[in-house]
Amino acid sequence: MKSRLCEMLGIEFPLFAFSHCRDVVAAVSRAGGFGVLGATIHTPETIHEELDWIDRHCDGKPYGIDVLVPENLATRGERGVTTRALEGRIPDAHRAFAAGLLADAGVTRRAASERTGDMPQPFDPDNALRTLEAAFEHPIKLIANALGVPPQEMIDMGRAHGVPVAALAGAKEHALRLAASGVDIIVAQGTEAGGHCGEVSTLVLVPEIIKALGSDRNIPVLAAGGIMTGEQMAAAMAMGAAGAWTGSVWLATTESETSPVFREKMIAATSRDAVRVRSRTGKPARQLRSTWTDAWERHPDSPGALPMPFMSLISEGALRAADAAAQGGNAKARDLVTYFVGQGVGLVDDVRGAGQVVQDFKTGYIEAVERLNDLIAE
Amino acid sequence: MKSRLCEMLGIEFPLFAFSHCRDVVAAVSRAGGFGVLGATIHTPETIHEELDWIDRHCDGKPYGIDVLVPENLATRGERGVTTRALEGRIPDAHRAFAAGLLADAGVTRRAASERTGDMPQPFDPDNALRTLEAAFEHPIKLIANALGVPPQEMIDMGRAHGVPVAALAGAKEHALRLAASGVDIIVAQGTEAGGHCGEVSTLVLVPEIIKALGSDRNIPVLAAGGIMTGEQMAAAMAMGAAGAWTGSVWLATTESETSPVFREKMIAATSRDAVRVRSRTGKPARQLRSTWTDAWERHPDSPGALPMPFMSLISEGALRAADAAAQGGNAKARDLVTYFVGQGVGLVDDVRGAGQVVQDFKTGYIEAVERLNDLIAE
Repeated sequence: MKSRLCEMLGIEFPLFAFSHCRDVVAAVSRAGGFGVLGATIHTPETIHEELDWIDRHCDGKPYGIDVLVPENLATRGERGVTTRALEGRIPDAHRAFAAGLLADAGVTRRAASERTGDMPQPFDPDNALRTLEAAFEHPIKLIANALGVPPQEMIDMGRAHGVPVAALAGAKEHALRLAASGVDIIVAQGTEAGGHCGEVSTLVLVPEIIKALGSDRNIPVLAAGGIMTGEQMAAAMAMGAAGAWTGSVWLATTESETSPVFREKMIAATSRDAVRVRSRTGKPARQLRSTWTDAWERHPDSPGALPMPFMSLISEGALRAADAAAQGGNAKARDLVTYFVGQGVGLVDDVRGAGQVVQDFKTGYIEAVERLNDLIAE
Repeated sequence: MKSRLCEMLGIEFPLFAFSHCRDVVAAVSRAGGFGVLGATIHTPETIHEELDWIDRHCDGKPYGIDVLVPENLATRGERGVTTRALEGRIPDAHRAFAAGLLADAGVTRRAASERTGDMPQPFDPDNALRTLEAAFEHPIKLIANALGVPPQEMIDMGRAHGVPVAALAGAKEHALRLAASGVDIIVAQGTEAGGHCGEVSTLVLVPEIIKALGSDRNIPVLAAGGIMTGEQMAAAMAMGAAGAWTGSVWLATTESETSPVFREKMIAATSRDAVRVRSRTGKPARQLRSTWTDAWERHPDSPGALPMPFMSLISEGALRAADAAAQGGNAKARDLVTYFVGQGVGLVDDVRGAGQVVQDFKTGYIEAVERLNDLIAE
């Protein structure tokens, strides 16, 4: 495909795959798309191993890295906050509610290890920027911020290395702020997306943002939210998107980091099972509905979600434990299992290899264009 | 455009315009689209005048009619319920809260007239079916039900007259029930739509429903929700939709029944100003956010929405009065003004003639197809 964006990034097909799994990132880039490693859980120390592996497996094709530097964090202004320090600030009611859910399901959560305790707080901005800096020792071709306006240091890093900076926008107003901040690529992410998302649908948000940006630096807009097929990618590009930014579709690949239990739940789910709730990170994020999300959102005894970053300390370890117990055959633990996923989960009916998914996107894309041409053929 | 649906209905461009305004219906059909008159507020007596007018102004082009026969109504099973009878069953708290909102804004609501009192309850199923029967004295080419599975009588009426029956679905499960009921055309309506809507976005719902229906009687699926432009219509059709079902875009036309104040508010709004709340009809319906919706949804003293059909008795008269006062220059009344509208309101930046909107859809559609072709051209 010929476009300014494809030239800018040296790719053939503007399908962006956000994944926490290096295997997916490498497979997508190899197949002609653009893999983006979600590095939120990494540190400057751990990121090298991941990127070394990608460098060895991506056939020299371009890839990128995505961090999450939230503009608003409950611990804003505090420096060097460790996980252990935060643990001590979690209210008893929240601790007890989470423990009760696990106990009811017969799930045992291991005590936080020493190593985990010394880790930076979840979504720590300093850690994200240092991780990004470390990543520049590798041939990364894009850096992205998953929530809000990237800090100036991130824009500067991109400039210094000649690497474009992308950022996600869930509303027109966000996109205008991103454009003003100097971002090079804007990802217009609709409410149907997995993970943190706003309330406007992709079908409306993409043209609304493209229209609002006008010819401002000719910023390419990628469409995100709900896109699982090449037909949907063509739909987004019919509206002027420069490409598609995808996430959920890679969770149902053989390479994915998700558990077999979660992939089975993806196949069984309809779009309505992807709910937008605060009960995993403290900010509204779409994820698979489960007894965990139901309890936090609907149970009369629920103490409600804590703000970011506290909520992740409660949920991540608990849900890892539930996932492990579910893999061992615990049915109640299986009911608890959830992960970030968008409404597109309703379109998942099998688990494929990531390279195959890219091929299927290309096929679907071409079929969609042919469908449109056939309709207006004489 | 050549398609089975276009042949079935005798149209050239599968753009369906739902409107309560006969002028819009006739103008769209004249321009090659398909106008659908929303007849919810009509009776067998009043519908003739509307359809006579359309018959005189649509140049013999096909048009349809849409009624709303809800499957669940708080007055279910009661027959011949008049507006006056229902008025007496509205709790004092709700009456007082509504009156307080109007009083705070200096809006005077006229007493319900004798004529209004004898009217059937809002959304009365018997009235809808009798209205439909009366409509068949005119050359209607489509009947549609806006909420849930149409009653068997409605399907039978369509069959008897050889007129296709369409119905709206907000979820895959609804679409499967519609298909089983014998509906001929399914409108997959995403959460971004104005009026009653579900939670799944158009970009996901359209392919999810098409996939779920498979080759079941080869039922055409129209895409609805958020579609304001030909580019978005092309997007929907790239995913396999047989056409686009639209509503909000016609509210910003010169022919529309909406007030100048509301049209100005549409132009000023972003997509996030279209909120999905129960406070107008008792069921979740998307509408422009205003001090009216805010008060019912967020004010600590709000008694909450009443179920359908009671809520409409409170809101419709009150909001008509607010609209009238706003036209007279009352700024607080203007703040109250709201009407059903989808997230696509964020794409409205002018008021055009309805025929011009159809032309702009055609132009945008062609541009979108050309854009896709250019991207893959050698």
